[in-house]
Formats: sequence, C-alpha cells, structure tokens
Amino acid sequence: MSRFWSDLATRLTPYVPGEQPRGTRLIKLNTNENPYGPAPGVLAALANISADQLRRYPDPESSELGAAWAAREGLQADQVFLGNGSDEVLAHAFAALLKHEQPLLFPDISYSFYPVWCELYQVPFQAVPLRDDFSVQVDDYNTPCGGIIIPNPNAPTGRIMPLDDVSRLLTAHRDCVVVIDEAYIDFGGHSATALVADHNNLLVIQTASKSRSMAGMRVGAAFGQRELIQGLVRVKDSFNSYPLDVVAQQAMLASLADEEWIDSCCKRVVATRERTASALQQMGFDVLPSAANFLFARHKNQHAADLFAALRERGVIVRYFNKPRIEQFLRISIGTDEDMDALLAALQDILA
Amino acid sequence: MSRFWSDLATRLTPYVPGEQPRGTRLIKLNTNENPYGPAPGVLAALANISADQLRRYPDPESSELGAAWAAREGLQADQVFLGNGSDEVLAHAFAALLKHEQPLLFPDISYSFYPVWCELYQVPFQAVPLRDDFSVQVDDYNTPCGGIIIPNPNAPTGRIMPLDDVSRLLTAHRDCVVVIDEAYIDFGGHSATALVADHNNLLVIQTASKSRSMAGMRVGAAFGQRELIQGLVRVKDSFNSYPLDVVAQQAMLASLADEEWIDSCCKRVVATRERTASALQQMGFDVLPSAANFLFARHKNQHAADLFAALRERGVIVRYFNKPRIEQFLRISIGTDEDMDALLAALQDILA
Repeated sequence: MSRFWSDLATRLTPYVPGEQPRGTRLIKLNTNENPYGPAPGVLAALANISADQLRRYPDPESSELGAAWAAREGLQADQVFLGNGSDEVLAHAFAALLKHEQPLLFPDISYSFYPVWCELYQVPFQAVPLRDDFSVQVDDYNTPCGGIIIPNPNAPTGRIMPLDDVSRLLTAHRDCVVVIDEAYIDFGGHSATALVADHNNLLVIQTASKSRSMAGMRVGAAFGQRELIQGLVRVKDSFNSYPLDVVAQQAMLASLADEEWIDSCCKRVVATRERTASALQQMGFDVLPSAANFLFARHKNQHAADLFAALRERGVIVRYFNKPRIEQFLRISIGTDEDMDALLAALQDILA
Repeated sequence: MSRFWSDLATRLTPYVPGEQPRGTRLIKLNTNENPYGPAPGVLAALANISADQLRRYPDPESSELGAAWAAREGLQADQVFLGNGSDEVLAHAFAALLKHEQPLLFPDISYSFYPVWCELYQVPFQAVPLRDDFSVQVDDYNTPCGGIIIPNPNAPTGRIMPLDDVSRLLTAHRDCVVVIDEAYIDFGGHSATALVADHNNLLVIQTASKSRSMAGMRVGAAFGQRELIQGLVRVKDSFNSYPLDVVAQQAMLASLADEEWIDSCCKRVVATRERTASALQQMGFDVLPSAANFLFARHKNQHAADLFAALRERGVIVRYFNKPRIEQFLRISIGTDEDMDALLAALQDILA
C-alpha cells in the first residue's frame, strides 16, 4: 500500500505466472512450453536483423505479418490484430469488447488471468461452472450477458469443445462478443477462425508461444470481422502504438513460412501426450482427455499438493492450483519423451 | 462505431504516431530516430539467441536487465521497472500513479500521448501553458493536483528544464507523484535519476529508442523508489506478465555494455544539431534552443504547413503539428550530416 498509488493500483490482485526457475537443472513441466524449439528459420531471421531495422520504429500495424497470419487462417489482412503475446491481445479485448453492463461469462475453471483483467478494467463477470466431467456445455451459457470468453481447448483441463458447439454458442449470443481463446488449438482441435466469415460476434485468439515454440518472443493475435478488430485497434492506439518490435515481426514471419516444422513438432507432442496419459492411468491417475500440450490428472488416493512437493524434491516441476474443485489435480506439460520418462520414474518412486 | 464496442472503446481518440513510410527513398526526419544504429554488440546478441531461449517464457521481471540498467543510473535493482517501450511504461504510470481525483498537470505543448492515456484511464487533467519562450516554469505548477508529468527535454520544443528546477518541483509537490519523462536526456541534459534517493515522489522515464538507437526494439524503463515501482508492478502483472521478450532483454543488456558507443553517437548528433540550427537561423528561422535530437523551428515569413508540403515534395519528411501555438513550427529530427545537408539544400530551393 502507498498513498501514491491510484485506487485502481491498490485494489488489484495481480496474476501470478508459473514459476520460471533460472540456472537450475529442473525438468520444467509447469508452463506448457514446447520442448522442440521454433522453426530453424526463426533463428536465421534474428541473425539477419540489421542496424537500420533496429534504429527505426517498427511498423506500428505489423502489416506484413498480419497479412501472412490472416492468410494462414483463410482470412483478410483487416481481420487480424496483433499484440505483444496473446495476454496483451486478451487484455485489449477485455477493455474494448467485453466490458459492458451485463456480466461477462467464462468457465469457473479456466485461465486464471480472466478475473484479473475484469478487475483491471472493471468488467462485471459471472463464472459458469464446468460440468462434473469438466466439460463446457453451451446450454449452461443461456443467461443474459455482456460477452463470453472460453479457452478451447480449455486450460487447465485440456478438454476441447467441438466446433459445432462453438457455432451454436455464437448463434445463441448474436448480440454480444464471444471470444474463443485458442492458445492450444494446434495440439488437437480445429480453429474457430473457420467460423469468422459467418459470425460477426466471434473473436478468436491465438499465440506463438505453444505450438510455434516462441514463448520467449511474445507474439499473439486476434481474428475476427473488421468491426471487432477496429475496436481492438482503438484501444491499442490509446495504449502503445508499437506493441510488436521489428524482431518479433520478422521471427513470426519466419515461423509462418515453415508450417511443416510446426506440424511435425505438434505430432510428436501429441504422441508423447497419449503415451504419458496411458502410463499415468496405469499408475492410478484419472486423466482428463486432453487436446492440448498438457495433461490434467488426479491420483485416486494421493493428495495433489503432496505429489507436487514430492516431484519438486526429485527435480520435476509441474503446476498445482490450490483452488476449489481442482485442488486434487496436477497440470503436467508435455516435454520430450525423456522428460516424461523422468516424470514417470519420479512418480513410480513416490508411489512405491 | 459498433454495438459490440465498449463505451470506453467508442469514446477514445487514439494517438497517431509519426508516419513510417515503407520502401521509399525519403529522408526521414519525422520521428526522432537516431541515424547511427545501436551498439554493434546488440546485433551480436540477436545472433546468439538460442532455440531454448525462444521456446521458454522470458524472465517476467527482466531481473538481470533491470539490475544492470539501475546500476548505470546509480540505483538498486528494486528501483527500476521495465516495459515494452517507454510508451507502455508511461501508460502503466498513468493507471497506477497518476490517476487521482485532482487533475494531472502537464504542459499544454508536450507529448501528445498524455491526453490519450488520460482518456484511456479516465484521469482528469489540466494543461499548464508554457511561457511565451516555450519554457517550463516550475511556479506555474503551484496549483492543487493529483500528479505532474513533464518531458525533459520537452517535446516537441526540445527545451530543457535545469535539474535545480526539477528538484524545486519535487519539493513543492511532496504529496503527489512527479514524472520526468526523459526520452531525450542523453542529448544534452543531466538525468533526474540523481534525485531519486532524496525524493520518494519522483518517477523518471527513459527509453532505448533515441540515444541507444533501438526504436525498432521497444525497451523502456521507469526509475523511482521501491514504493512507486511496486505500484507499476501491480498494474503490469494485471495486464501482461511478460512485457519484454528474451531478445529485447538480451539486446538491451548488450547496449548497456557499450556506453562508449552511445556517448560517441550522441556527440555526433549534438554537433550536427548545432550546425543545423545555425544554418536554419541564417535562412530566416527562429530555432528554439534544443537539448534533444531534434530542432523546433519557425520561419519568419513562411507558413509551416507550406514548408512541410514543399519538403515532402523534395523527398524530406519532417513533423508538422497543426495545433494552437505551434502551427507555425516544424519539428526536424537530426539525421546524419548528409541528411541535414539534403534538408538545408531543399529549404534553400524552397525559399529561393
């Protein structure tokens, strides 16, 4: 507390990101990072940056990158908005499109940054409980609202909602914006960008952090019809004209130029995920079906907090959320096969 | 306008940055870019980034960079806050420290993003007129207020306020935060970071865009006592945990490791500025004394709008603000000696 702080700064309860231990030899399965690194062309793009590119301001609209990413989704250049990671894009969406008198709806178990943005921008919200199987059911959202935001696949559960359900949700809520937050879509789903043409109330969020293995680079995007994109642009241009530096723009262009690399890395992650899920089940875990690069699992007779601590002692970090309904779950990112073998060996040891 | 926009998005009047023409052969003297490029170590840092650094999230606190930049200013690691360019840092300062019931004060002729952030965060403000000679006078700020922000040197005038005046201003306003925005300080001033130890109400903003020639990279900082820094951290962690990507962190560390390069480039810019100012005066311009990397000048009998257009026709872009009190001025960034010779030749031609 400080008398110099605004009421806003005083009132906030900031988001706490997953731990990023430095200079340690831990096996890090706690922040859903991709084990395989970005497309090789990304590193080449960094090495090719010139002094002249650095001394000049970047393109404030990231036009070339926007056009390329939109094209990948079958959309036009004016149907994309870029930001400094999808978190920044989401923040602007809360301010520009989701702040209304009626409450914003999102799942009770979901990305824990959503209520933080609601507090920052004073967006009223209402959490909609997931079903007992942790699935999102569209009919549960049939209530007056100012907007809806759902991660798909959901985090930290990993469960995916079929595109038909997304379509039904959009049709049932034609008067408000529905945001589908697709950080993990490339690990087993079909993007709702296919629905943009038919739904002027749809905004789809994607990121380079997961499937493109560029968490260190901070690049995110929103896709939607021009009207929604322009609302985001207004807020962005009232906050920071230059969200993406020239290096990030060039790096992401290089990633988009090598879809084969992305596909192949995602396939490896998915194969490792399925193998790990089976092994965990054999060890007494309930494992939710995952369409993401992580597993959400609970052991039949071990406390999650104890398992979390015991894994940490053995040099493996996973994510544990001490929150109602999920306090018996661990969220385990999918690393290399060797990483997962180390996790499974540590668990064998703990459960022995 | 869209029914999907929030009232906030509808109400905003976004900032318009200086034009960034692409792929043209214009001499660009409109956005105060440094002609000499960043320290050579910066490009080497980009080439040394690894796939492993990119696949992982960056340090959300940019701790190593913060400690290095604070040390350069004679401060501690907990007395610095980093952001995605100084615009982002400023935006957070408006939300965290400058939003109060009493109006924020800033010069009537100043950085035109200030009123935009006031609108974004609903900060009441009052513009304080510069004197007729476009100087800031501390006594003009003796009015009840919720905060003060002044660029020093001021933009677009280039005039600097002596550090003694900054000190008097801080003492006269002990109960509110005073932000000194030092984007151009390295071209002829002494940083107010020297006053941080004695003034718990001081926040100093700096950027890598100008003297460090890294406008393309987006790195900015705020310096102040821990209490103010923590207010900024609260807002940052409620907006985007990872404002600086790993590449920007490493690039800025490399820049801080080569102060000799920065000093030498700044000295060249200052020498070119003084030579250009004399030449402009000989051509009939009033030129304000500048401590920045630009000149603010008005011709005795030519309209600025006409000169702006005529220069553009001859391939030279400068900045023209069609605003009260300064509508007869041009803001001219200092480029290389060759750039300025081309400007002067174009003006000779226009005025002949």
